Amino acid sequence: MDSLKIGVIGASGYTGGELVRLLINHPKVEIVLLSADRQKGKFIEEVFPGFRGLRLPKLEPLDLSSLSQRVDLCFLALPHKTSMEVAKVLIQDGKRVIDLSADFRLKDARLYERWYGVHSCPELLKESVYGLPELYRSKIRTARLVANPGCYPTSVLLGLLPLAEKRLIEGRIIADSKSGVSGAGRSLREDLMFTEVAESFRAYQVLEHRHLPEMEQELENLLGEKPQLDFVPHLLPINRGILSTLYVNLKVRMSEKDLYELYLERFSEEPFVRVLEPGSFPSTSQVRGSNFCDIGFKVKEKRAVIITAIDNLIKGASGQAVQNLNIMMGWPETTGLTSLPLFP
Amino acid sequence: MDSLKIGVIGASGYTGGELVRLLINHPKVEIVLLSADRQKGKFIEEVFPGFRGLRLPKLEPLDLSSLSQRVDLCFLALPHKTSMEVAKVLIQDGKRVIDLSADFRLKDARLYERWYGVHSCPELLKESVYGLPELYRSKIRTARLVANPGCYPTSVLLGLLPLAEKRLIEGRIIADSKSGVSGAGRSLREDLMFTEVAESFRAYQVLEHRHLPEMEQELENLLGEKPQLDFVPHLLPINRGILSTLYVNLKVRMSEKDLYELYLERFSEEPFVRVLEPGSFPSTSQVRGSNFCDIGFKVKEKRAVIITAIDNLIKGASGQAVQNLNIMMGWPETTGLTSLPLFP
Amino acid sequence: MDSLKIGVIGASGYTGGELVRLLINHPKVEIVLLSADRQKGKFIEEVFPGFRGLRLPKLEPLDLSSLSQRVDLCFLALPHKTSMEVAKVLIQDGKRVIDLSADFRLKDARLYERWYGVHSCPELLKESVYGLPELYRSKIRTARLVANPGCYPTSVLLGLLPLAEKRLIEGRIIADSKSGVSGAGRSLREDLMFTEVAESFRAYQVLEHRHLPEMEQELENLLGEKPQLDFVPHLLPINRGILSTLYVNLKVRMSEKDLYELYLERFSEEPFVRVLEPGSFPSTSQVRGSNFCDIGFKVKEKRAVIITAIDNLIKGASGQAVQNLNIMMGWPETTGLTSLPLFP
Amino acid sequence: MDSLKIGVIGASGYTGGELVRLLINHPKVEIVLLSADRQKGKFIEEVFPGFRGLRLPKLEPLDLSSLSQRVDLCFLALPHKTSMEVAKVLIQDGKRVIDLSADFRLKDARLYERWYGVHSCPELLKESVYGLPELYRSKIRTARLVANPGCYPTSVLLGLLPLAEKRLIEGRIIADSKSGVSGAGRSLREDLMFTEVAESFRAYQVLEHRHLPEMEQELENLLGEKPQLDFVPHLLPINRGILSTLYVNLKVRMSEKDLYELYLERFSEEPFVRVLEPGSFPSTSQVRGSNFCDIGFKVKEKRAVIITAIDNLIKGASGQAVQNLNIMMGWPETTGLTSLPLFP
Repeated sequence: MDSLKIGVIGASGYTGGELVRLLINHPKVEIVLLSADRQKGKFIEEVFPGFRGLRLPKLEPLDLSSLSQRVDLCFLALPHKTSMEVAKVLIQDGKRVIDLSADFRLKDARLYERWYGVHSCPELLKESVYGLPELYRSKIRTARLVANPGCYPTSVLLGLLPLAEKRLIEGRIIADSKSGVSGAGRSLREDLMFTEVAESFRAYQVLEHRHLPEMEQELENLLGEKPQLDFVPHLLPINRGILSTLYVNLKVRMSEKDLYELYLERFSEEPFVRVLEPGSFPSTSQVRGSNFCDIGFKVKEKRAVIITAIDNLIKGASGQAVQNLNIMMGWPETTGLTSLPLFP
Repeated sequence: MDSLKIGVIGASGYTGGELVRLLINHPKVEIVLLSADRQKGKFIEEVFPGFRGLRLPKLEPLDLSSLSQRVDLCFLALPHKTSMEVAKVLIQDGKRVIDLSADFRLKDARLYERWYGVHSCPELLKESVYGLPELYRSKIRTARLVANPGCYPTSVLLGLLPLAEKRLIEGRIIADSKSGVSGAGRSLREDLMFTEVAESFRAYQVLEHRHLPEMEQELENLLGEKPQLDFVPHLLPINRGILSTLYVNLKVRMSEKDLYELYLERFSEEPFVRVLEPGSFPSTSQVRGSNFCDIGFKVKEKRAVIITAIDNLIKGASGQAVQNLNIMMGWPETTGLTSLPLFP
Repeated sequence: MDSLKIGVIGASGYTGGELVRLLINHPKVEIVLLSADRQKGKFIEEVFPGFRGLRLPKLEPLDLSSLSQRVDLCFLALPHKTSMEVAKVLIQDGKRVIDLSADFRLKDARLYERWYGVHSCPELLKESVYGLPELYRSKIRTARLVANPGCYPTSVLLGLLPLAEKRLIEGRIIADSKSGVSGAGRSLREDLMFTEVAESFRAYQVLEHRHLPEMEQELENLLGEKPQLDFVPHLLPINRGILSTLYVNLKVRMSEKDLYELYLERFSEEPFVRVLEPGSFPSTSQVRGSNFCDIGFKVKEKRAVIITAIDNLIKGASGQAVQNLNIMMGWPETTGLTSLPLFP
Repeated sequence: MDSLKIGVIGASGYTGGELVRLLINHPKVEIVLLSADRQKGKFIEEVFPGFRGLRLPKLEPLDLSSLSQRVDLCFLALPHKTSMEVAKVLIQDGKRVIDLSADFRLKDARLYERWYGVHSCPELLKESVYGLPELYRSKIRTARLVANPGCYPTSVLLGLLPLAEKRLIEGRIIADSKSGVSGAGRSLREDLMFTEVAESFRAYQVLEHRHLPEMEQELENLLGEKPQLDFVPHLLPINRGILSTLYVNLKVRMSEKDLYELYLERFSEEPFVRVLEPGSFPSTSQVRGSNFCDIGFKVKEKRAVIITAIDNLIKGASGQAVQNLNIMMGWPETTGLTSLPLFP
């Protein structure tokens, strides 16, 4: 069978680079196009020197008029607001799109506007599928446009999913999340300099991070009511990894064994979710470099603590995008995603 | 005036070393005795090579029979269960003691027993003063035995103090705390090796850390009822620093400005508590190497998030112990503690 | 074709774990046996929680009497002095062995004795092949016993190879090497605790590290005379990676372009050596997680500086071992080793 | 006695901030003026939030016309090329100046031009004193203009000083130096982002770093001939610290004890140089936060390795500047510099 022709739009950022790293060893695809406006004309190894020696097409400026003729499917690793126009054209031309930006995650254009700005193709919001395979696998199969979830939402939603869809939680939900620095992308910001981050730890955008509405939307779907969700992200002095500590109130008394069985059953067919036996807790180093999401928990009366860990660039971004690709194409879901965590 | 003769018992651990580092520049004291059973006979610079060149007495094994004749006041930087016997002898001999272990923090000997083991001198529990200056300054002045608070409790209690003593909070309190590795002491443990901790992040002792009862005791005093406190500590890949993110439910609606003013007023006379203007949040790197506790917050309806940062070895241990010394001796409270944070 | 039956002896250390991580995705082998005396009876995921979910045989104590019946080929990831006895038995039983310890690297049993202790099977030293593919590929093909090079020697020898084998260097050679902490193995040592290593940097075993004789032996072969080699290892506060800065005196004047062409030609057929264009220098992060060795250089008159970077656990240990496996079996040399560097 | 009125010009960078941190606890000075063009109008705590609570004058734009009336002495923590004009005015007005830039370190204006650009006040180059107290103490006492050494040169020159001034070395000298990230200043550069530096290590400006001519100049003075010096700087994933590994050829055979005694004697009166007993080697963590330079060494035949460690922001910049201030004013040299290393 011929390889699927893949374009990566926005290949010079961290999620773009991670897509290239994963796709290069994917047996069923060929990267035929890499675009990156600011780095156009360069080889990808000039932007990611670790990729030295790869024979890949040069980075080129985005040309929407020819794009659809050259690719079968595109990953968009662009900033939000930039992505939507590209997706629109590709979809119109009958191509399938996996968008890693926030542009198609929120179903409500007004909500998008409040957090990001005006949406130029709100009609696509209805069609797009939120790309969390553990929740929307069957829709992803046939989707033309997959909105790959944010890194924080992935770590929070997977941790709450089994309880939320059984409507076993009530009241205030707290998501205290901690992310490695690559989650902020490759932007040049003073607060992300080594000297500002190393040997340091802090919270940021307390209760007002842009990933909040995305979590609220999906939790509302699951719970049947608007959740009371407090989300506080923190910046970890590590490159990769998100650990979310989730605090919920259970509607009924459940033991740790009860929770363990509930989660084990819910995720029994999931190739990338690992439920930890009671007493064990996840660590970002145990998922680093892999597409796994590890989940552990603790219960005290009706108060539960659920802890999840992912690699923000893989299960939190590019790995999940490849997982969605596999689902869309009917390939085994782990294709190209079999790397075990790199430790130490 | 003659210098106060100080003994540091347990000088080879991190809190012991930090005491030496602080006291050596304290203008009113002289370190006359350093003990460390396992390192006896060595110079302190063999245990802390950075102290090379200091002219200090050699580390010696603990000799309880002569100890009281040689010192005016002792800092005990010993493991819990070891400390109580030493304190007892010193107090009987009329010396004053600042104990950095957990041995005299809990007022209830049965509670101590449940978390640490049998207490051999429960009669001293009544007398000992919990050494949080912001709460017990006047008692500390005249105390013979000060129980220096744990690092996590310091970061949690200072964050909750103004709200708790006004009884403005109700229901579940969540303390999601993150600590640098030095908080675990200088013990040789596989899970504290560089390769296990660097580029990693994890929770531990979820809802069952030994610092919990100490927090509950003090919060109960403030609130007038047993608190519903969930405490989850996490291990940060940094050397020093604790950041605690505290989630509380307010009894009444308060704006961020209300909270700011409440905290500002409560801590207006405190030399080491810095209340951050709304919109700013603390960072461990902004207190590293100093005795400061920085506090910031965010409110959404009646849900408040309070964030505190301390250097766990200073305000969380040895610096607070020196602050207590200053209070006990009637010296200016900042004596020997004027170092600004080391950044970067 | 049936899979090759592989045993990993010493599977609980970092090189053992890394072998498992690489071999699990190797299409031509099956891990049939994992041994680890101290961890016997455990699943590998209890020792490497990141491997959670792998279905691999339990760790078992080493049983030399049955070993040869169960495996086709063994990797020995044992401490030096322990390895030799196991290798001897396997070789006698007609099995092939890739030994990651130092036991078969030195050809001279007396030299081994000076650095490590008495050698119990010196007759095997003649037969063993030093497993640096770039130097001994043809001998490795047919070897029964491959002595996988040390991590530091790999980084130093690959950097000197083109110049040394052309005898273009003279006088003092300086190898100033810096290694991540995983190079020290998984041993519980105070000087490898997070708090001792993070935010710190130091040299150790200056001019007397055990990897010195191994480098001297191979350089002497290349140069035709005993080299004057000064080797100073340093400990980097990172998990993985060795960067070696090599200072040599050239016999003749050469430009950077001359060196570039010499290296480019020498390594043109090598799948894992990447020669950097003049003006570029390697970084450990550009090889992390891959089997690459990157080489850059700078020349000033007849003084050259050559800089190499490898991942110490991959090209410096387990990846090179798998490369040797591929060569021994006649498989494509990159089989199972196609991962690109993980960045950031 | 009245406090000396101090101005810090360029207070928003790392060396400026470190000057403030040190001077605030210096008993004989008062900071009366802080300038920082780009941050003018801000409080220093907006630029260094860790300084929160200090009552210091606001950052102001530099006003050369009034500067001299307001200060007794100025520290210039400006970029090179910017510093010279400010120094010129201050010196003309009879003020004393400690310049932390490179502008007055090189005695030869043409050499300055080659590395930095045209010098606008070459006449001051003759007058300025190179501010390495261990070498120029008596000249510093009466100097009007002190050129504070670079961080790398401090670490290299102190290591070579005793051998060089006795002319005991010959041939190629290699300085393999490794610096923490704060050495690069507070500039916003992609290669200094956390994600680029953490878990990474690399060399840069190999054999062509701007600190080379400064080392060559001072070594030539000591050796009586132009040195053959190869300097390779590397970037360490730490905030603070430089470790330099120096390789020299001895003219005569010397034992480690010989070197030890030579260094011990040479530095016996130096308050900030600590010579380590043979067998011990320095570590950046053993000098972090202090003004110490630690020196250790190893000898093999006539090849010596000398290793030095400093905190680049203290002995390598602002601490040495304060040391120079103390010398210029006839104060005890350790005034304001008594902090012990912060460990861990």
